[in-house]
Amino acid sequence: MARIPVESFVLGPAQGATLQRQVQDAVTRGVLAGRMRPGDRMPSSRALARHLGLSRITVTLAYADLVANDYLVSRGRSGTFVSPNAPTPAPVPRAARPARGGVDWSRALGQRFPDPAPLARPADWRRYPYPFIYGQTDQRLFDHGNWRRCALQALGSRDFGPLSEDAYARDDPYLVEQITTRILPRRGIDARPEEVLVTMGAQNALWMAAQVLLTQRRTAVMERPCYPALREILQLGRCIAQEVAVDGGGLPPGQVPEGADVLFVTPSHHCPTGVTMPLARRRALLALAERREMLIVEDDYEFELGFVTPPLPALKSLDRTGRVIYIGSFAKSLFPGLRLGYLVAAEPVIRELRALRGLVLRHVPGHVQRTAAYFLAQGHWDAQVARMTRAFRDRRAAAQAAMDTHGLAPARANAFGGSSFWMRAPEGVRAIDLADRLRARGVLIEPADAFFSDPRPGPFYRLAYSSIASEDIPEGIARIARETARLAGSAQAVWP
Amino acid sequence: MARIPVESFVLGPAQGATLQRQVQDAVTRGVLAGRMRPGDRMPSSRALARHLGLSRITVTLAYADLVANDYLVSRGRSGTFVSPNAPTPAPVPRAARPARGGVDWSRALGQRFPDPAPLARPADWRRYPYPFIYGQTDQRLFDHGNWRRCALQALGSRDFGPLSEDAYARDDPYLVEQITTRILPRRGIDARPEEVLVTMGAQNALWMAAQVLLTQRRTAVMERPCYPALREILQLGRCIAQEVAVDGGGLPPGQVPEGADVLFVTPSHHCPTGVTMPLARRRALLALAERREMLIVEDDYEFELGFVTPPLPALKSLDRTGRVIYIGSFAKSLFPGLRLGYLVAAEPVIRELRALRGLVLRHVPGHVQRTAAYFLAQGHWDAQVARMTRAFRDRRAAAQAAMDTHGLAPARANAFGGSSFWMRAPEGVRAIDLADRLRARGVLIEPADAFFSDPRPGPFYRLAYSSIASEDIPEGIARIARETARLAGSAQAVWP
Repeated sequence: MARIPVESFVLGPAQGATLQRQVQDAVTRGVLAGRMRPGDRMPSSRALARHLGLSRITVTLAYADLVANDYLVSRGRSGTFVSPNAPTPAPVPRAARPARGGVDWSRALGQRFPDPAPLARPADWRRYPYPFIYGQTDQRLFDHGNWRRCALQALGSRDFGPLSEDAYARDDPYLVEQITTRILPRRGIDARPEEVLVTMGAQNALWMAAQVLLTQRRTAVMERPCYPALREILQLGRCIAQEVAVDGGGLPPGQVPEGADVLFVTPSHHCPTGVTMPLARRRALLALAERREMLIVEDDYEFELGFVTPPLPALKSLDRTGRVIYIGSFAKSLFPGLRLGYLVAAEPVIRELRALRGLVLRHVPGHVQRTAAYFLAQGHWDAQVARMTRAFRDRRAAAQAAMDTHGLAPARANAFGGSSFWMRAPEGVRAIDLADRLRARGVLIEPADAFFSDPRPGPFYRLAYSSIASEDIPEGIARIARETARLAGSAQAVWP
Repeated sequence: MARIPVESFVLGPAQGATLQRQVQDAVTRGVLAGRMRPGDRMPSSRALARHLGLSRITVTLAYADLVANDYLVSRGRSGTFVSPNAPTPAPVPRAARPARGGVDWSRALGQRFPDPAPLARPADWRRYPYPFIYGQTDQRLFDHGNWRRCALQALGSRDFGPLSEDAYARDDPYLVEQITTRILPRRGIDARPEEVLVTMGAQNALWMAAQVLLTQRRTAVMERPCYPALREILQLGRCIAQEVAVDGGGLPPGQVPEGADVLFVTPSHHCPTGVTMPLARRRALLALAERREMLIVEDDYEFELGFVTPPLPALKSLDRTGRVIYIGSFAKSLFPGLRLGYLVAAEPVIRELRALRGLVLRHVPGHVQRTAAYFLAQGHWDAQVARMTRAFRDRRAAAQAAMDTHGLAPARANAFGGSSFWMRAPEGVRAIDLADRLRARGVLIEPADAFFSDPRPGPFYRLAYSSIASEDIPEGIARIARETARLAGSAQAVWP
């Protein structure tokens, strides 16, 4: 029952915590390390405040919170003491570090996986003045206030019971209702709740679809170029993976090889070039799928950003036989760190996918689902999409104007909109070299080599306007044009 | 530029929403359905309030919020109008429902997955007066207030940037720090951040470990009985799966078959029987693993609930050669719907697991990680564990006393604690029949058939005290004893 000296209090690194919290942390650390024991007497708030150079009210509030959480007890005039119910420190001593080299991991590991596609963006991309980077949320456009309110609502005690449970057999019915009534009708898709599965984003949906639909003897067709993670999924999976090059209208049905079983396509606007598949070609692709008994996995990423012309109906909306498995995501309209998407398919497919998801991860966290459900139900999602669409239209126009001024042009016409242009560096210039040079000048672009299966660096890059303000675009484009011209001037013809 | 009649307003089903929110929803539904168009004039708040039978302030607040979100604009005395910036309705008409029977799914599906283990608990288990069900959070014990505060902190604008990003290459460093400095030392494990992977719960960790460590030619050993999802993972995976029966000290090393490559064990207290592996056996198992070059996957679920005797050091803490892959979870100490766990292993293993996770789901949602990090950092997790431990100790004592009174006894001595007893119905009584009878009497128990690979219903069941109040336990046990006696009286000897 010692008296704890004020000298034993040292505030740790701030980590963005308030002073009150830092005081609390110092106490919990002391208790958990066994330095402060049940019954020990705390310094008076006055003495501790003086020692730490804080106001007394800060320490008083910290003590009050610690009392509320049963770390401390207050015994009126006698003072404040470590609670008899305070958590006890770890009973087990730390073991010595394991000896190195006990296992030959090159033999012990059963399967190896490719490194995730190298990141084209540096971790500190937000510090660059001209970040033409793709797929990250622009905080200036995100309705953070309403998102937080919806999250708070989902965190309320009324929702806590059901959301805290293990719920692998079903998704949040409220979110599924929002998806079927508010989102899918925009794409012309009429789905029942039993035909929807909530996923950890679009990539998780693609991965699961590949597992359920393919076998070692089946052939999957992907577009060329292709979303790198999908290519890795198919190349690793037990299937025969083939590529078909896209043209200005997306995947040409005539090029689909005989014997293909499952096609993975992005008709709304191809990833990454942004070209849109015309309606006639969509119908032709569906007819082909029916004739040859193929299945189609449609990744409708970013459909909500079709602002140049209204998006064509999803393939899934034209599908009369249930051959299309449709994938959507909230990564762009909400944010990618949320990991939330959905998949629409015939019930037998959903059944297998749900069972697979149950084995792999059980379900998407309940609060994540419910927060998004509230955000949708209250109309914030629609407003958010409207706000992004307006901003992206302006940014696209600014980029187009600046490119016109400086004699740059996208490599593919994009009548859809979206959040990026597909660019090609001139003859002899490698996109990675251009990106290196530009980075030193405060400009970030994304070399597109990872979208191709060839190992050799190529000329293509992606110029995204989803994270850069309109007013910064002209100068950014000017710098790209300047560095492009410099590199082209010194380039040798490395392209055949 | 029509005037919108009050009659077009109908409040939808409440779904727990406030009246103000229901008014807002009615407007956003009208806008998104195209019934209310930009420039249309809204009814006055007075008229709409009268029509809906609400107070005028409710409607005024709803309008104000809709103005803030740019669904409406207020033009002073002229009235309130649908904003020119309001989201536009879906441009695409709904497609007709796909024709049925276009695809023969029995042929089209490449892989089938077992139904997730049938739920032993009914969805409305909270309504039963005597729910001896396992693994769900008791809201009376969960520190909901501080969890919500930590979630709010993680949802703040300071954290939003990093947490909103796609971050598949790394986990939240703040959570990893809490795991390595606050949790693992309790288990005697000294791990560097590079040796930790954050997972979607323990099951996700088990699944990933199986993918990375096993191949078609390798042999996995599981305990018998065994966590059902692990058995499904191993039986589906590309490996040879074998069972070894546990005795009163867990998995007997002498029974491990020659040629085993990876052992999946629960030494702290076996799942589901609760027996603890003695220290000598842990050392023998490790020595065997080194001699035969086996790897061990240690699922340390519920370690924080070892309150009868302090938990023995984790296998991982005794491991000198890096052969042990350690799995922990927040499902019990926080809640299962959170889907949060962690895995500790040698760096080469973590590298493959991270790459696999990147392909399958990219990463655990940022806010989920950060909320847990704050909860840990502020000492709430330790306090939570202390609170649960006290409550479970009381409940366990109440259950033991009631069993003594009624002549029931656990089938396995459990010196650990945890949240359940392992029970065996008398000769000739099937646990599913006992559970059926009890359900009609307000008592839920969990037949343990899913823990065995035999198809035949057996006598074992799990009696968990993690979701039932101490004061309800004696009557619940009395009913179990009564129904057990009735069934035993009428039983024929169906066990060999």
